[in-house]
Amino acid sequence: MDRVGEVSVAYRPPEFDAEFRERLYDLLKWRRDVRRFKRAPLPPGTIERLLGIACLSPSVGLSEPWRFVIVEDAARRAAIRQCFEACNKEALQMQTPDRAALYARLKLAGLDDAPCQIAVFSDRSTAQGAGLGRLTMPQTLDYSVVNAVHTLWLAARAEGIGLGWVSILYPARITEILDVPQDWVFIGHLCVGYPVQADDTPALEREGWEHRHASSGVVLYR
Amino acid sequence: MDRVGEVSVAYRPPEFDAEFRERLYDLLKWRRDVRRFKRAPLPPGTIERLLGIACLSPSVGLSEPWRFVIVEDAARRAAIRQCFEACNKEALQMQTPDRAALYARLKLAGLDDAPCQIAVFSDRSTAQGAGLGRLTMPQTLDYSVVNAVHTLWLAARAEGIGLGWVSILYPARITEILDVPQDWVFIGHLCVGYPVQADDTPALEREGWEHRHASSGVVLYR
Repeated sequence: MDRVGEVSVAYRPPEFDAEFRERLYDLLKWRRDVRRFKRAPLPPGTIERLLGIACLSPSVGLSEPWRFVIVEDAARRAAIRQCFEACNKEALQMQTPDRAALYARLKLAGLDDAPCQIAVFSDRSTAQGAGLGRLTMPQTLDYSVVNAVHTLWLAARAEGIGLGWVSILYPARITEILDVPQDWVFIGHLCVGYPVQADDTPALEREGWEHRHASSGVVLYR
Repeated sequence: MDRVGEVSVAYRPPEFDAEFRERLYDLLKWRRDVRRFKRAPLPPGTIERLLGIACLSPSVGLSEPWRFVIVEDAARRAAIRQCFEACNKEALQMQTPDRAALYARLKLAGLDDAPCQIAVFSDRSTAQGAGLGRLTMPQTLDYSVVNAVHTLWLAARAEGIGLGWVSILYPARITEILDVPQDWVFIGHLCVGYPVQADDTPALEREGWEHRHASSGVVLYR
């Protein structure tokens, strides 16, 4: 007899039917990395509620290392924007001229318009979970935070709210701007708000930057 | 006029209703890191189909750096099991005696029973995406792969299939065992199959190892 089974609760687990799965695939297909936001604010409490859902995500050793910093202060927002501009300028120099022009057009950040901004960190020093599962791979703490961001992304999209993940930033500078502990690892800066439009094709594909490839090409057998 | 809007497709985006969202929250609540699997195999083609869904995940610069290695060879599976045992032994020494006993009981790997095993890697050398978005944060490639694992996890659970993420391994050894390129970053080893039981509480919480904390404690304002 399974020991865990003995203490399991009496209520029945949910069964997900084909109709739900179809909607789930729609959600995955229509989840976009949103760059163009309406300026309308989210209803009060929305982001905290969505972050509560994000905390249902898996984490290594149940360490829950995610730390969400909601950035509201105008000066800090301006500093982050400045950090993006400097980093973006450097990134442009790495591209060929024609791609650089395209890159500039892509409007990579929703930093100006998104009503909500969240910097996300991984608390590498957390004692929660007592180190379980992360002895040889401490980066699994960061991966746990990524899971939470992805959950947030899907939960937001399911209520018509878009999310854009900005990674063209200098992590150390963001830590400084937001005055968070030095040993928190910066994972990403999120812009959240109502998207200008919904789409099932990535913006980078629409713009001719890159296209998606068949999954068969990335599956190997050993 | 939004340039992107001009080229947008004519069909209407899906609207997700409250009922769908409730089922989505159920999915998030009942997604578990499964350790106890039935030995029954998955129907042929199932895992390839699920990996196809995982490839709908967001990736930095549309780089799609995920590489999935389905491990079928008995000798390679045995080598991975051995790697886990060695790593687990070392991890046990890091715990206090009472926690070590609990740790040993947790049966951390489904390596013996899960019919399907997938080692997941991040191709740090991929040219796809032309470096977009990852100049200062190349680890966003790895984060993209984590997104794909999370999508796989949810898609699997939505059809009653469980997934367990094993991270108590030496990454370099896994790369060697599976004979994949040296510059692929090992992200995790996944056990996939039908779970012995469904649950809405993490095994580590059921076992008294750790409990989940309120999300309010991890949200800061700046």
